[in-house]
Amino acid sequence: MRATVMYGAGDVRVEDVPDARLVEPGDALVTVTRAAICGSDLWPYKSMEHSETGRRMGHEFIGVVEDVGPDTRTLKAGDLVLAPFLWSDGTCVFCREGLHTSCLHGGRYGDDGVDGGQGEAVRVPQADGTLVVLSVDRDDALMPSLLTLSDVMATGHHAALGAGVGPGKSVAVVGDGAVGLCGVLASRRLGAEQIILLGRHPDRIALGKEFGATDVVSERGEEAVEHVRELTGGLGAHSVLECVGLGQSTTTAMRIARPGGAVGRVGVPQEESIPEGLATFFDNVAIAGGPAPARAYVEELLSDVLEGRIEPGRVFDRAGPLDDVPDGYRAMNDREALKVLIEL
Amino acid sequence: MRATVMYGAGDVRVEDVPDARLVEPGDALVTVTRAAICGSDLWPYKSMEHSETGRRMGHEFIGVVEDVGPDTRTLKAGDLVLAPFLWSDGTCVFCREGLHTSCLHGGRYGDDGVDGGQGEAVRVPQADGTLVVLSVDRDDALMPSLLTLSDVMATGHHAALGAGVGPGKSVAVVGDGAVGLCGVLASRRLGAEQIILLGRHPDRIALGKEFGATDVVSERGEEAVEHVRELTGGLGAHSVLECVGLGQSTTTAMRIARPGGAVGRVGVPQEESIPEGLATFFDNVAIAGGPAPARAYVEELLSDVLEGRIEPGRVFDRAGPLDDVPDGYRAMNDREALKVLIEL
Repeated sequence: MRATVMYGAGDVRVEDVPDARLVEPGDALVTVTRAAICGSDLWPYKSMEHSETGRRMGHEFIGVVEDVGPDTRTLKAGDLVLAPFLWSDGTCVFCREGLHTSCLHGGRYGDDGVDGGQGEAVRVPQADGTLVVLSVDRDDALMPSLLTLSDVMATGHHAALGAGVGPGKSVAVVGDGAVGLCGVLASRRLGAEQIILLGRHPDRIALGKEFGATDVVSERGEEAVEHVRELTGGLGAHSVLECVGLGQSTTTAMRIARPGGAVGRVGVPQEESIPEGLATFFDNVAIAGGPAPARAYVEELLSDVLEGRIEPGRVFDRAGPLDDVPDGYRAMNDREALKVLIEL
Repeated sequence: MRATVMYGAGDVRVEDVPDARLVEPGDALVTVTRAAICGSDLWPYKSMEHSETGRRMGHEFIGVVEDVGPDTRTLKAGDLVLAPFLWSDGTCVFCREGLHTSCLHGGRYGDDGVDGGQGEAVRVPQADGTLVVLSVDRDDALMPSLLTLSDVMATGHHAALGAGVGPGKSVAVVGDGAVGLCGVLASRRLGAEQIILLGRHPDRIALGKEFGATDVVSERGEEAVEHVRELTGGLGAHSVLECVGLGQSTTTAMRIARPGGAVGRVGVPQEESIPEGLATFFDNVAIAGGPAPARAYVEELLSDVLEGRIEPGRVFDRAGPLDDVPDGYRAMNDREALKVLIEL
């Protein structure tokens, strides 16, 4: 079969790999119908050292179950399924608490003999715990929005929950990438009164406004902090969503939180320690977030997608076949594309 | 009047200073009857640069109202009052949210012409918002426990709240100082099932056990992390109370939290950034805490003290008159004393 392999920074190829096949009794074999390139895929695209064997890529996908292992009980061939970006058993202590990202028996796509999602098929371990059956047609017009529930919309929602977004709150979203824009949408969905989007790309800001942003801050660093303070009566935002992960964006996020507020961080941190630890201490600013337990959020967000209340799939501004994946990485890295949908 | 002045590291003196007097219309003039030396007073005691004018010390005290300014409505001469460790107006947006430490019109004792608590009398600004009238005699046997509500017990409670302590939770308390021990007491009060105290001073550990600690970890660094993991089924503690503030203790606190758990930090951070930012991200560990809004907690904790359900005053293991304050600092710094009560 064909699948995406990264061999180093800037070196992504779609090539022949061994066919996906059932291995463990709890596996499902899924033929991919839609996949996506994630902002987090760009970190290795920028920095990965050359590897002879390469690394299988992709963790956001929807597909059709082809076959299941003997221990798989809730799935059958022909089911259209959504895969959250990590696989998880659904039964361990963490899954029961809704923290599927810390599943004791879970893992990542592309690691340890598990296929990546940017390919023709995937062996999904712990399939009963992981996959969510969708009740729509495989080419339904809602497909882009449904696909966002595997990661990017779930991640925006997780940032908003970590930041304590709720009715009447002022929210600041740091980053106008696909996650930040989903954070805006999630904040509006949770009832935020004011949503300040920090970003500087006109087309992304335009979509952010349609998603619910009430204010835009295009400055960076200290000027951004001042502008957010102006917009929030001098106090800062109740809830800050850190959707980038760089040192500077995280510093900004910490500095624009209001005393007693919270920062929900979902951008993968590119530094070991958290900046502004002293200021956040004296202001009693809480810091939460991490990888989103997308599996825990699917049902709740799914009904909003199916009933048309949110349309997170609008973050996809480019679509193409599997062979276009390398150019999709390039386009996202060059900021030509916001997020790329792969149609198989 | 006599009051405590710090002139530099290791140089604390009790000396004559101008008499405290009413200045603002919302002030109260309070004659101090009990005061305390705080663990946070030891930071300048270890490191303060020499100052010609010195710095007035003390922020935990109980006293008798002598006189009030014309705008003070809820207090009268003769009232016995408890002073939380910061003064606050009780009416601003943050006070109304229970975050009196961020009061828009509040401040610290010892700053800007406001007296310190380790002296014969204090001018208390924003007296209506700050002071809590006590319904007991000024020499009541509960005085030590009542005095802890001005800071140390409120701080232990704040750490426990920030760490999400509740019924059935496993708790780890980093630090066996007076705040850590109050954190143990607060955790038991909030229903924790397991309370692991990290410390190595036998007398403090003994008190910690009486306060509710179920396990003790005396190792440090990686060995402490391993021991806590052993005690918590390999998972870490749901709730971690960071009650020291040093880089090493904070690193330990972050590393012993269970995925999805929380660290409540109340030790004044001695470093600018928060360590283990990447590990806490991937484990979705939340970080909360800061200076405790003691004023917000007084009523709730007061009833438990008055009705004998908690006895936090046991953290005081030395008492003496005002002139003993310099030796009290020395004794606490040398770890001869856990916490020193000043009787006037």
